[in-house]
Amino acid sequence: MDKVFAAHPLMTFGAGLQAPEWYRAIPFVVDKGVDMVDILPGFPNGTFALAPEQRALYHALCTLAGNSTFFLWQKIAHEFRHSLGLPGDLLAPFLHQVVANALQPEAARMATGPVARVVTGKKNIGLRHEAGID
Amino acid sequence: MDKVFAAHPLMTFGAGLQAPEWYRAIPFVVDKGVDMVDILPGFPNGTFALAPEQRALYHALCTLAGNSTFFLWQKIAHEFRHSLGLPGDLLAPFLHQVVANALQPEAARMATGPVARVVTGKKNIGLRHEAGID
Repeated sequence: MDKVFAAHPLMTFGAGLQAPEWYRAIPFVVDKGVDMVDILPGFPNGTFALAPEQRALYHALCTLAGNSTFFLWQKIAHEFRHSLGLPGDLLAPFLHQVVANALQPEAARMATGPVARVVTGKKNIGLRHEAGID
Repeated sequence: MDKVFAAHPLMTFGAGLQAPEWYRAIPFVVDKGVDMVDILPGFPNGTFALAPEQRALYHALCTLAGNSTFFLWQKIAHEFRHSLGLPGDLLAPFLHQVVANALQPEAARMATGPVARVVTGKKNIGLRHEAGID
């Protein structure tokens, strides 16, 4: 179809309203070759070009990035509240930092926690066995 | 052991340094019955009590929350850069909002995207078949 363009706001929307700055920070992914200024003059959000044939991959990646973690974290926050007696949003500063770390180009070298501390982990397991803890 | 206490900073730490406010926002999970003010007078961070026997579950949940999403998002940001030609951090506002949504007590009712739009999804699939797109 001629003069029909795709412009996708890369964001999740709930029933509640947000402050104006929140809306202005949403990036829009638009069809390659389309200039948003031609369609909506004065549109203030950042726009990023994508070839239409890559739209399906793009949307699959967005959905995977958001939904899979949403369901996992919802479960974990529930466990914090009901099994540990801790507030679910205690995880917020940590998880915001995980977002920031994971999206950096050098993220592949930035894994932390027990996964990255293989040497420490093996040493600890050895010490626990020696002490007869396990 | 007597007078040995656990105090866990719920955060991920990299090689770089952050602003002082970043450190003060880190919640500390401490052994139930221990008052951080007795151990470190003037300690400014929020502290949250946990029974020592729940420490293993707590730490497993933290690791699952952080590492699993870290590896997934790192892959997705890589695909954004190399398959779609989009900046990896284009996902940042969206994923920060997913953090905020998932940790709310009412999160179970807040799923969005194609997963939540089953009716729309089925309708679209039907229309695509009718139009001979698939």
